[in-house]
Amino acid sequence: MSMKTDDLILLGHGSGGTLSHRLLDELIVATLSGRGPNEQNDAALLAAGSTRLAFTTDGYVVDPPLFPGGTIGSLAVHGTVNDLAMMGARPLWLSCALIIEEGFSRSRLAEILTDMRQAADSAQVRIVTGDTKVVPRGKADQIFITTSGVGVLEHDLSIHGANARPGDRVILSGSMGDHGIAVMAAREGLPAAGLCSDSAALWGLVEQMLACAGSGVRVLRDPTRGGVATTLKEIAQQSGVMIQLDEQQVPVASQVQAVCDILGLDPFYVANEGKLLAVVSPEVAEPLLAAMQQHPLGAQAAIIGTVEDGEPGRVRMRTTVGGMRIVEMLAGEQLPRIC
Amino acid sequence: MSMKTDDLILLGHGSGGTLSHRLLDELIVATLSGRGPNEQNDAALLAAGSTRLAFTTDGYVVDPPLFPGGTIGSLAVHGTVNDLAMMGARPLWLSCALIIEEGFSRSRLAEILTDMRQAADSAQVRIVTGDTKVVPRGKADQIFITTSGVGVLEHDLSIHGANARPGDRVILSGSMGDHGIAVMAAREGLPAAGLCSDSAALWGLVEQMLACAGSGVRVLRDPTRGGVATTLKEIAQQSGVMIQLDEQQVPVASQVQAVCDILGLDPFYVANEGKLLAVVSPEVAEPLLAAMQQHPLGAQAAIIGTVEDGEPGRVRMRTTVGGMRIVEMLAGEQLPRIC
Repeated sequence: MSMKTDDLILLGHGSGGTLSHRLLDELIVATLSGRGPNEQNDAALLAAGSTRLAFTTDGYVVDPPLFPGGTIGSLAVHGTVNDLAMMGARPLWLSCALIIEEGFSRSRLAEILTDMRQAADSAQVRIVTGDTKVVPRGKADQIFITTSGVGVLEHDLSIHGANARPGDRVILSGSMGDHGIAVMAAREGLPAAGLCSDSAALWGLVEQMLACAGSGVRVLRDPTRGGVATTLKEIAQQSGVMIQLDEQQVPVASQVQAVCDILGLDPFYVANEGKLLAVVSPEVAEPLLAAMQQHPLGAQAAIIGTVEDGEPGRVRMRTTVGGMRIVEMLAGEQLPRIC
Repeated sequence: MSMKTDDLILLGHGSGGTLSHRLLDELIVATLSGRGPNEQNDAALLAAGSTRLAFTTDGYVVDPPLFPGGTIGSLAVHGTVNDLAMMGARPLWLSCALIIEEGFSRSRLAEILTDMRQAADSAQVRIVTGDTKVVPRGKADQIFITTSGVGVLEHDLSIHGANARPGDRVILSGSMGDHGIAVMAAREGLPAAGLCSDSAALWGLVEQMLACAGSGVRVLRDPTRGGVATTLKEIAQQSGVMIQLDEQQVPVASQVQAVCDILGLDPFYVANEGKLLAVVSPEVAEPLLAAMQQHPLGAQAAIIGTVEDGEPGRVRMRTTVGGMRIVEMLAGEQLPRIC
């Protein structure tokens, strides 16, 4: 049976970048829910009686499943907790579906599950339901974990990607690219001195931000696959605004930048798993930044740009050398199986 | 690196039978939630404000992903809807996490997703959130789908596996083994005349059962992996009762029985995806059976046994030839990747 190349799913369709967006918009989300591209957020909002819930899911296929700073288990907890937190929801309950390759080490599984439980306990969420499948050797790669999460909105704030307005400030909670570079170094056996995933649960930071700035917090997003650049481009498109960045203000760890320089990677496109981007109203920006810097996960937080009334969907960046650069979404696939 | 055999995860650990139970009890559930073997149900019950929710997840790795009577897409909807229904919860919202092998056909993906959406529409649930990962060729087998579901309990009934009492009747909603045998025939290229998965959403049937029998419905379970035998053994153990079956009363389609006879399979251990087992109080059993038989998914429902005050956890069966047989859980793996 011959098959046309354009009928095939490519690695880039899972990148979080342009190809992912097209596949989601044209096929997956269009078929499953009928929702449009500008209505896609990190989690769904649901009404259960008078309670507002957030509901989200993520599959984790990270290679290797154990890496500096975490495992696929803690990563799966953090990622799902963060998707709920980005809707302003307090994460409460997680599910855990394991797909394990026959022959996987039981003691390694125990290590991953213990790490998962510790991450859940630290984030004050409970893993309340689960499922385990085993597939024959060679039919999966070691272990895949899909976590879903349910959280509760304890306020009536409206925090979503279409909410950015001209004049708003863009805050990044810390340095870029730590997760992606740490995983890649572990996979490739590169010397990893100083490299460590930033994988962390962000609800504690978000809770402080909401207490400080309330409705001044307009958009929250965690820049995972596709990195800071892709996430900002999504926000600019969803909100129909222009975002202007100042590269000099964007924190990058020197060892991450060094690996990126050697390999020709751009940290703006590398995945983070313990960072958030916030678009906030101008009057709350400075006090909120100060509050964030008091939190361990926001110590390096910085205002990295502003929302402007320019071309809708455009992201521009003043570079460190003073030039102006157009920022696009990740095209193709930079680092597969990073989460 | 050498590794002891008993450190390895085996196919049987995903069977739903004895090995699965041991892995769950000793490692997975013990580590992730700390809950004991008798507290495990198809879904978790949660309180969100004054609303009682059910929350569940299942990973689907069925091979092949398209089979007579369904696809991995509709199966993933039905399975998760049914796990909620077995708690007496009205299924409302689903998540869908896809793990796709690079090179998978986009048109086949479209077929699966369309089937998934139709199943969701028929079951009156909405797919509200999702995630898509793509892994390199050879690192997964075509497509895996993990669905999670949230439902609402609209009553204060207590329906769970530890609820069976001596004197109760055991009802099976229809014939055994259709799903497992249809998938196996499709996988092995066996002549499949008349073989069709029973994959279906059971909430409509459950809703009618609750309206008819209310608190007379004590336990609901869908006998998926491990089949009717394993599920009844679980109920007997959780409730600390004995269950006595009458093989003559248990419906099996003749073509399913024929394939089982040829291959040496026991339909009591073959997976179903559109059937339920109910343990009900004796006074509601007959009217409830009549009500179930009015529903398309319960047309062949039958009272197949009784709960007795015998050895706790024991399941016995009077065979068609008049003998008495002890029914145990599935040991090892009979049909891998059946769901």
